[in-house]
Parts: sequence; structure tokens; C-alpha cells
Amino acid sequence: MEHLGKQTIKLDKPVTILETACIVGPKESDGPMAQYFDQCLQDEFWGEKTWEKAESKILKETVNTLISKSGVPANQINYCFAGDLLNQCISSSFGLRELNIPFFGVFGACSTFAESMCLGSVFVSSGSATNVLCATSSHFCSAEKQFRFPLELGNQRPPSSQWTVTGSGAAILSSTGDGPYITHITPGKIIDLGITDANNMGAAMAPAFVDTLINHFNDTGRNPSYYDAIISGDLGYIGKDIAIDLALSKGYDIKDNYYDCGVLMFDKKNQDTHSGGSGCACLGTIFSGYFFKQLKERKLKRILLIATGALMNSTSSQQGESIPGIAHALSIEV
Amino acid sequence: MEHLGKQTIKLDKPVTILETACIVGPKESDGPMAQYFDQCLQDEFWGEKTWEKAESKILKETVNTLISKSGVPANQINYCFAGDLLNQCISSSFGLRELNIPFFGVFGACSTFAESMCLGSVFVSSGSATNVLCATSSHFCSAEKQFRFPLELGNQRPPSSQWTVTGSGAAILSSTGDGPYITHITPGKIIDLGITDANNMGAAMAPAFVDTLINHFNDTGRNPSYYDAIISGDLGYIGKDIAIDLALSKGYDIKDNYYDCGVLMFDKKNQDTHSGGSGCACLGTIFSGYFFKQLKERKLKRILLIATGALMNSTSSQQGESIPGIAHALSIEV
Repeated sequence: MEHLGKQTIKLDKPVTILETACIVGPKESDGPMAQYFDQCLQDEFWGEKTWEKAESKILKETVNTLISKSGVPANQINYCFAGDLLNQCISSSFGLRELNIPFFGVFGACSTFAESMCLGSVFVSSGSATNVLCATSSHFCSAEKQFRFPLELGNQRPPSSQWTVTGSGAAILSSTGDGPYITHITPGKIIDLGITDANNMGAAMAPAFVDTLINHFNDTGRNPSYYDAIISGDLGYIGKDIAIDLALSKGYDIKDNYYDCGVLMFDKKNQDTHSGGSGCACLGTIFSGYFFKQLKERKLKRILLIATGALMNSTSSQQGESIPGIAHALSIEV
Repeated sequence: MEHLGKQTIKLDKPVTILETACIVGPKESDGPMAQYFDQCLQDEFWGEKTWEKAESKILKETVNTLISKSGVPANQINYCFAGDLLNQCISSSFGLRELNIPFFGVFGACSTFAESMCLGSVFVSSGSATNVLCATSSHFCSAEKQFRFPLELGNQRPPSSQWTVTGSGAAILSSTGDGPYITHITPGKIIDLGITDANNMGAAMAPAFVDTLINHFNDTGRNPSYYDAIISGDLGYIGKDIAIDLALSKGYDIKDNYYDCGVLMFDKKNQDTHSGGSGCACLGTIFSGYFFKQLKERKLKRILLIATGALMNSTSSQQGESIPGIAHALSIEV
């Protein structure tokens, strides 16, 4: 494996993203990306008694769908990398406890899916594993309850707030297969510019996105035009605009080929999500559902996937702390 | 890298544990291991206004101590792997946000330190990194407040309960150096035998410990006598006894060379911690403080370090869920 520049790893043997799967909740099923998801639920509970149990079930069934679609039996998957937004990542540990695959719990807030794929790709490329599974989930109701207010209160949401995606995305990375290939990873640093508004996550995470983006370009010698698409996790409308401006101020014009999963997930006019979607499942489902298929069909040939996360909790906000952001990048090519 | 048997990775190039550091709280400073720690605090707050901020400071200062002791400048550490027990792992993200090193957030409950070292050792051994930093923390007061009851209530603790260690442990893994070497890792599966008593974590985690232990032996062809010491994370007195019995029932007698960090941390007679210590920092500080020095001085030459974690939260317990356990193993030799 080759360590490039400050933060990037060039994978010796490119790692194939063998298959993906995703399941989403009712609101996502009404949005513009619905046709790309494997399953669209009509009920936030999916027959369970609590939102937490529903979220675990969504993750579990996404992984079952993935294993079934991939044709790779569970006993040939060496390691699993997964995490989510719930305290102590219980959606992942309860959702995957029957899977019988060695498990690495990962926490990167909404960057978790990319973090999992960074770790998994090093395991596969180095020969430590033949196949690994990466998975994540989030749920609007369990997240609101945990991070903000009881839903029953019917609180108003400020215009800068984002809507946590209900769903789960998962992928199998493999040493065999004919792509799309993960060729480079650029894990990100924690960046905290002092934003304290927990209802403006896009602003808190945009600097981390730009830091990882520019380090990726510096480390690899590439520039924005190398990629057909640069994709951020869930900066939303506000964060996306900040990211474009910040990148431009550093000399990189990304506005022509830059997409944000938080912007893509919902219909701005009719779905009333304010600044767009968020949550681990936002990039998790849109990559697994939409971008993976675009790569398989060669409509996109080179993408830079950068998932962003806000590394705070409700206690840290109550104690007046600012919101540290992080962003992890993967270069994926066919 | 070589994948052995079901779960084990034999590292191509053995990874050196270059240096460790640890800081502990007041109760740990009164215990039998106090002489081995780098710094013993006299105050749970360490001058901060909240326990959460104190925990972040302990982790931050442990890492500063580590970098200073190691002689490796921070800008030559390629990646950092860290996590803790606080919701969304805020102790790690706030404690390390000024470090300016690409960061992987990890959640394995009390198995976090071993999980971090498993991930870090694959990065170093594969050439993806030259030096990585692994760190974890826990704090009795922040953990009690979050997982159980407000300390101010003065609740009674049942005899099976364990005392969360206040402290932080950290290590630098390196591709250079003359050991102690990490030679094999055996990441564990999630094991849930249906224990629902959140005040009996030892019982919930012991089956995961034994599962990883036996898989390590099966994968490597080794047996208990290969190691000078087999060390579990924090099963405590009750969990340790269960683990010995369970291992014996599977044909492995470990009682003569098996130690548990939860048992080692406190004085059973005078410190009133019931079933012993727990928390990410339990194994984190005892490995970093005691066992690492034993290896450096060649008083121990081969150890099997198995950290255990309980992958639940207070919501899952309130919703009647059982407690999934996990255990990750590292073989360390001089």
C-alpha cells in the first residue's frame, strides 16, 4: 500500500464494490430518488414497537437483501464494519448480532458509511480479507427523539435544519470482481471552526468537506475536473453553498460537477425538509441506490465520494461546545 | 497479510507498540496498580466544569504525554483510531480535535482500545501508515450519569455491578522499532446469549470473550500454554469466573495464566467496587501502564490481550433488549 502526501492511501490492489443494497422510509419513498432504492417502506415502524427497533430491522433487512443480491454467502464475508447515529451505535449491533461475522463498530456520525468503506478497503486491498461488509442506518424519528425534541411536541424546525433520512445502505467490498473499484482513500481530520448552532449542521461540516477535498487533490495531484462527480454526504442546501464558496476561495471551482446527497434526497418545493436530508443513511442510500448504479452502467466513470459527519451530541451542545466536523473521501472508478 | 482460519489475521510485518501512556482518576490512584500509571489525578473534574469536559481533557493530555514520551512528532503520525463510551464518542472527538491527524472514530464499548489497535495494526502492517495512534477513555461520573442514575441520587449498586474506570490509555503503533510486536489479531463476532441485567456486564460479555479466545486458538493452532498471560478487558470477578468455567467446558483450561483488568484495577477488600472495574479505560490504562512495561522488561514474552465490550445503551435496556457482547484479541510478543 502506498501512503501519498499527507492523508491519502493509494490501494495496492483496487477493491471492487461488488454489490450494494438500500431500504428507505416513507418520506424518502415520496422523494425524487425513490426509483433507485431496493425497498420503500410505507411505515416508520415497519411493524416494530419502537423506532429504535425499526431502525435495527431496516439495517438487518438491508444487509440480508445485500447478501442475497450479491450471491456471496455470509460465511464468506470475513469482517463487517458498521455504525449509526444512535447512542452506542445500537442500530448496528442489534441489527447485525445474528450475522455471525466478526464486527468492527465504527462511529463517524453521518460520515460513517465512507469511514466503513475506507477501513474495509484497506482490509481487502491488503489481503486481510477477501470480502467485507459495510453498513449504516439512520431514522428520522429515533434521531429527533435522541438529538432534539420528542416528536410529539410538534416543534418548529428552523430553515437551516436538515431532515434525518430513514433508511439503511450497505455494500460488499471484494478482492474479486470487475469494479467499480475503490482506488484511493483520503480519511479526514477533525475540523472545528467554532459553529455552535446544532440546527445548522451544514455550516459545521462544510469546512471538513473542503479540507478533505483539498488534501485529496494535493495528495493525488488531481483537480476537480478529474472526476465526473464530486459527491458530499449531507451538507444540505446551506452547507453545499458554503462548500462551493470555501473551495473556490482555496482555488478549486467545483460547482459544475458537485452533488450533495442531502440536496438530492428530497423535493425542495414539495417535501418541506428545509435545508435537505442528513443522517448516515442519506449518503448510504443514495450511493448504494443511485451512484453505484450510475457507475455500473458507466454513466459515471470516476467519482469522489466524501461523506461528512458532525461529531457532537446533545450534552456537548447543552454545555456550550462547538461542533467538530469530519469528512472521509473515497475515489471510485470503473 | 494472511487470513488464518475463520477470524484471524496474521500480520505480514509485525507491528511494534512503540510507546504507551495513561492517566487515571482518584479512585484508580488509590488502587494496587497506581505505581504503573503516568499520572494520577486527585480530582474527578481536573479543573473542568463538567465530567464530560474532564474526560476529554484526560484523553487529550494522555495523548500529549504519549507523543512527548514517544519522541514521534504528531505530524509523523498518519492516522488516529479512537473511541469511548460517551454518546457519539464525544470524549474522543473533543479531546482530539486539535490534534490535526486524520481520525477514525471507533465504537466497541469497553473493547474499543483493542478494536483500535486491531485496525491500526492492519494499517501499519500493510504499509498504509508508518505510525498510528490508538486511544480511549472512560469516566466513572460521566458513565454513571449517562448509563445509570444521577450520582447525586446516591443509588445503591448491586453486588454484580462494576465500577467504570476514570482514565485514558493510548498507544503508538509503528512499522519501525524492536517490539513488543503485534503478530496476530482476532476480531470478534457479536455474541448475545440473552442476558438482560445491565448491572451484570461480566455475564453478558464472558461468552464473547470465550468465543474469540477459542477461535483464536483454532485459527492459530495455539493453546492457552503458548501465552505467558491471557488478559481480558473487564469481565470483573463474576465474569472472570464465568469465562474460566465456559472455556473449561469447551476444553481449554485457562485459570493458571488468565488475568482480568477489571479484577486487577481495584482492591477488592478496601475499595468497595463490588465485581471490579470496567470501562474502555480499564484495559486501556492497565495495558498501557502495567502490561506494556512487563513486555518491555521481558517479564512477559507472549500475551493474548482480549478486550470485551457490551454493545447496548440505556434505551435498549429500557426496551427490554438483551445485551450483545463482543471481544477483540491481539497476540503480542517480544
